[in-house]
Amino acid sequence: MKKVCIVGCGAIGSLYAAHLARVAEVWAFVRREEHARALNREGLRISGKHQFQVSIRATTQAKELPQFDLGIVATKATQVEESIVDVGVHFDEGAVVSAQNGLGSEEIIAGHTRGQIIRGTTFMSGTRHSDTHVQYELDTATWLGPFEPRNTPHAIVNEVAELIVAGGLQAEALDDARPAQWSKLIFNSSVNGVSALTGLPHSPHFADESKMSSLGHLLHALIEEGKNVAAVAGIQLHEDPWEMNKIGAKTNHPPSMLYDIRHQLPTEVEFLSGAIAREADRAGVPAPLHTAVYRLIKGKEASWNFKDENQDATHGKPA
Amino acid sequence: MKKVCIVGCGAIGSLYAAHLARVAEVWAFVRREEHARALNREGLRISGKHQFQVSIRATTQAKELPQFDLGIVATKATQVEESIVDVGVHFDEGAVVSAQNGLGSEEIIAGHTRGQIIRGTTFMSGTRHSDTHVQYELDTATWLGPFEPRNTPHAIVNEVAELIVAGGLQAEALDDARPAQWSKLIFNSSVNGVSALTGLPHSPHFADESKMSSLGHLLHALIEEGKNVAAVAGIQLHEDPWEMNKIGAKTNHPPSMLYDIRHQLPTEVEFLSGAIAREADRAGVPAPLHTAVYRLIKGKEASWNFKDENQDATHGKPA
Repeated sequence: MKKVCIVGCGAIGSLYAAHLARVAEVWAFVRREEHARALNREGLRISGKHQFQVSIRATTQAKELPQFDLGIVATKATQVEESIVDVGVHFDEGAVVSAQNGLGSEEIIAGHTRGQIIRGTTFMSGTRHSDTHVQYELDTATWLGPFEPRNTPHAIVNEVAELIVAGGLQAEALDDARPAQWSKLIFNSSVNGVSALTGLPHSPHFADESKMSSLGHLLHALIEEGKNVAAVAGIQLHEDPWEMNKIGAKTNHPPSMLYDIRHQLPTEVEFLSGAIAREADRAGVPAPLHTAVYRLIKGKEASWNFKDENQDATHGKPA
Repeated sequence: MKKVCIVGCGAIGSLYAAHLARVAEVWAFVRREEHARALNREGLRISGKHQFQVSIRATTQAKELPQFDLGIVATKATQVEESIVDVGVHFDEGAVVSAQNGLGSEEIIAGHTRGQIIRGTTFMSGTRHSDTHVQYELDTATWLGPFEPRNTPHAIVNEVAELIVAGGLQAEALDDARPAQWSKLIFNSSVNGVSALTGLPHSPHFADESKMSSLGHLLHALIEEGKNVAAVAGIQLHEDPWEMNKIGAKTNHPPSMLYDIRHQLPTEVEFLSGAIAREADRAGVPAPLHTAVYRLIKGKEASWNFKDENQDATHGKPA
């Protein structure tokens, strides 16, 4: 039986852990002692699209872990570094899938393991009701593909996709994962950035282009800019991010960066608009809008720690 | 003795009203009954840079007003229309100064009076402690100039500047007010927009260009874009908005749009970045950053009225 470790058990990590536990020996590596204890005691319950209960093993201590055939890193992009630093060696003889939003997680993982690295992009979603209960919602594929700097063999990508499918989730092995990763990158950067700055969830405003001031024009321009950077980087997109935006705008779904902003948590902007801005800079192509979104969100993060006694005065303000 | 009416008595309006009351018969036209009663009972007290107390007349009823030699509209730009609609005829034989931020107030005023119209731009500031007490802070000039569509005679602009100076404030009559108005427009649009979107007051971040993610780069780009629109519109600036920004960034001053955002009040964005976006559109020159700021702030305003039960769920969010 294969040994699998899920690093980070939020909604997405829990969905992988529970499904894979039906066909493999699954460990969860988590940060909170209480979380590990609850998982060891109660296992994981999935409701919604799939309904079952499984036992898994969980720990906060890397030294308790065996060598794994497969790891799936399912933390936020901002937490990959701290999560992988101690467990990376446990994948040295196996493979590791990155399941983060945006660009840059694979490079961080590669710095801490000699294992094979697989680019993962997923659109599955779930609602996390507790440490041990996740409701499965969007039953969509995880796209898997090689991490080019290490020439990940296609056979290994295939094997991982088959294991995930055997567990009951959808997965697809691709010869090149970047078209899928960039489609989601461009979609996510544009939608998360605008949502975080306006406070709006992914609502019909995001596809409205009826007036000059309409937000849909900005989404369209952000997406076009991202597509242009992708084209210059030699990447043909897997799906059109504008079409993805039009569908998402009907859901009123709160993007994760809106959640982060509301709770004053570090956002993934470095891996989203920040990554597009850096890729554009490297390629010598302009990306003024993603660069602006990047700087505004960094400014927003800075505002949480900025305190000044003048903050609520009304200098020069006509009433 | 000249008859003067100040429309809107916030910090700026109160400073004009009190100083002019020393050399003219001053009326205040305000919205709140309580405000009018307090002004009639107690007059206006100025502290800070200047210190004195004066009596003025105040009312909420346009029909109680006489014909005036001079009006100064000192409401927020968003309130000019509702303020001027009933009092405009009382200036038909006089002159009206607009003291709003941004572009577009003069055109609104012109729609409601046959009087002479004067473009006003001021950097004075004060802190409003109550309906009858304002602390005078930045003792800087009000720049006055003609409203070109009506060919306001220079003699009238001069006369108004002299009256304001006689009252103890600084004022300067210019042959063309647009260089001053546009300098402040570009400065204000850039600083207010970034402040409203990040939540930061006008702090050192706004002039910091040390990293790729630094906010100073965005301010610089917004200001350059505004200068380009001004140049295409044939306007030579009175001051360099980037220099104004560098000075302001040392003050930690909360711009008025930050106040509006915090209190969920309609912002002046239509008269600031929105005005630059429209001028750029008219001139056929690109202004992607001001247009983006415009759309983001409109989205932010829309978020205050957008309610959806999903708003605090954590769909698909890795913990």
